[in-house]
Amino acid sequence: MNDVSPIKYELLHIDRYTNARRGRIYTKHGIIETPVFMPVGTNATVKAITGQSLEDVGSEIILGNAFHLFLRPGLDVLDSFGGLHSFMNWKKPILTDSGGFQVFSLKDRIIDEQGVSFRSPLDGSKLKITPEISMKIQQSIGSDIAMAFDECITAYADHDYVSSSIDRTFRWAKRSFESHSRKDQALFGIVQGALFEDLRQRSLEQITSVPFDGYALGGLAVGEKYQESEKILQSFGTQLPTDKPRYIMGIGSPTMMVLSVENGMDMFDCVLPTRMGRHGTALTYNGRINLKASKCAYIEKPIDENCSCYTCRNHSQGYIHHLFKRDEILGKMLLSIHNLHFNISLVKDMRKAIEEDRFLQFKKQFFEVSGYPLKN
Amino acid sequence: MNDVSPIKYELLHIDRYTNARRGRIYTKHGIIETPVFMPVGTNATVKAITGQSLEDVGSEIILGNAFHLFLRPGLDVLDSFGGLHSFMNWKKPILTDSGGFQVFSLKDRIIDEQGVSFRSPLDGSKLKITPEISMKIQQSIGSDIAMAFDECITAYADHDYVSSSIDRTFRWAKRSFESHSRKDQALFGIVQGALFEDLRQRSLEQITSVPFDGYALGGLAVGEKYQESEKILQSFGTQLPTDKPRYIMGIGSPTMMVLSVENGMDMFDCVLPTRMGRHGTALTYNGRINLKASKCAYIEKPIDENCSCYTCRNHSQGYIHHLFKRDEILGKMLLSIHNLHFNISLVKDMRKAIEEDRFLQFKKQFFEVSGYPLKN
Repeated sequence: MNDVSPIKYELLHIDRYTNARRGRIYTKHGIIETPVFMPVGTNATVKAITGQSLEDVGSEIILGNAFHLFLRPGLDVLDSFGGLHSFMNWKKPILTDSGGFQVFSLKDRIIDEQGVSFRSPLDGSKLKITPEISMKIQQSIGSDIAMAFDECITAYADHDYVSSSIDRTFRWAKRSFESHSRKDQALFGIVQGALFEDLRQRSLEQITSVPFDGYALGGLAVGEKYQESEKILQSFGTQLPTDKPRYIMGIGSPTMMVLSVENGMDMFDCVLPTRMGRHGTALTYNGRINLKASKCAYIEKPIDENCSCYTCRNHSQGYIHHLFKRDEILGKMLLSIHNLHFNISLVKDMRKAIEEDRFLQFKKQFFEVSGYPLKN
Repeated sequence: MNDVSPIKYELLHIDRYTNARRGRIYTKHGIIETPVFMPVGTNATVKAITGQSLEDVGSEIILGNAFHLFLRPGLDVLDSFGGLHSFMNWKKPILTDSGGFQVFSLKDRIIDEQGVSFRSPLDGSKLKITPEISMKIQQSIGSDIAMAFDECITAYADHDYVSSSIDRTFRWAKRSFESHSRKDQALFGIVQGALFEDLRQRSLEQITSVPFDGYALGGLAVGEKYQESEKILQSFGTQLPTDKPRYIMGIGSPTMMVLSVENGMDMFDCVLPTRMGRHGTALTYNGRINLKASKCAYIEKPIDENCSCYTCRNHSQGYIHHLFKRDEILGKMLLSIHNLHFNISLVKDMRKAIEEDRFLQFKKQFFEVSGYPLKN
């Protein structure tokens, strides 16, 4: 429990015609400009990219997974190295999720009031994560921002289940807050409630009653249509406190980032750019390009002639196509660089649009003129 | 057939006590200091490393594979892009092998006087490579140095077979030379003869009777013991012309590079550093380190505290161990960087030792004091 927040959020400007906001988060590992996209570094590495390239594409903060890091390298190793920053040699801020999302996607997990029991996917051993254990793990990791332990439920769970789940998530949020002791680490609470407006409202009131350092919308991007998550965003985005960072978890498709920013959200994370990159798809302002398609074989142009990333400055679509046809690691590396650069450039462009009160024009351009697909 | 060689070899110095020599090869894509290690870029990419990192580790020339590039992307694409340099955006020199080594390792290849027939490992289609076709492929690739088409035979083929094979390789060498027309591309001949001294002698006399721009020893590092290849090196290294580059093909283990330099060789290539790197093994002056070993989990030191590569400047053995345990691509990337940097640093150290007439001390230090394993 922090008396003084280890991070500070500064609201710089709100777009004149939307709820899009431009801000800044001060942490001991540096300043984060918002809106911000956080690349996901599940296993103490953002997949297929070096730390240097991660900096080069403009990453200001990355996300680590408490669940995965707890399994391996494990707390002994993390403690021995003095935390994740030092272990992976990343000098900028890190946010960790609580492990909830990963644990709840395991088949054999058992939930009780105390926490969640499950078998290690690595060696089958019996493990349990409680709010207290999640705080312990995240404190060993030493992230700048930790997340409260919550139950992440599917978008289509029934009303009764979601109702009892959010009440438990509230109790777990308070236990997370009480057991969290690391004074140089911020702690965010997570609003759940699936797609039920009444339950989202209750969860929001519950979670914001705890003086967390920031607040998140969880349980979105878990299978629902974008219109459904947009509705939740429209109803609840601006209900989150204005003086603290607002984080929408697991959102990172270009479409959803634009809609989230419009509704007052500040922080995003998603494996989408790196995962798509490893599978041969590039993100651009004109939609997605499947580099595996044979029509790319002779294209001497880069993915985007206006893109300043390493990949576009150095390589053609034809070359990247060839790398994917031969299943060469370099193909995955080059598209991971490009896609992360794209997502980060997108939030940078949105920052500028907000500063100049033209977020609506930006959105119009993004969806209509550039023809970006309005889908998840 | 070139009237004037498109490359120039300058012999700078011969070590006072050995046959080790320090030289320089001038090409239209830049100067190559020798002895030189050439990273292997089979499919128009040195595996798991960006072009930028390849430059950063000190690569002065890379090797491309005519056989693989002929299959994919194919000559149409290479011609459309104006050659391999432009296709992969590599601005320094490139050497291509003739396809011989790859074709002869296929099971169903049929050799006749004309060339080699085989089925494409990609789609089963019937293909044939002749000396003339190999020259055509390498001319489309546009490498700075092309290799004559030869039969690469196993170390333990019988005397009769090797005898007839080297005579055919001689006829193919002359056909390669006659059909080669690209004036800005050098062409090297290849001495074969397995482990038979009399046949190596005959092949050397045959091949050096053709005015190639450089000469190679082929058919080594194909399964024999290091002492056997060392014997061939001792007998024939210095018999190769002194005024042209000397290349020993497929050699790139630290041990064999040192023995090759001692016997007057200038150029080396091998997939060993990158392949070992992708499998978790690091090369150092104190032997190999298996980063997958559990004893590495807590080691906060880099692979080599004296190494200046990106990997050693930024990451611990414990971190790399973790990446391999999680099968993360970054592990392969980091060890490929380190191992290439190691092989290139090794040739740089040998250059300096030759310049200062202390190659023997260098060799002694390498094998005895540092305890580097004297094996293949």
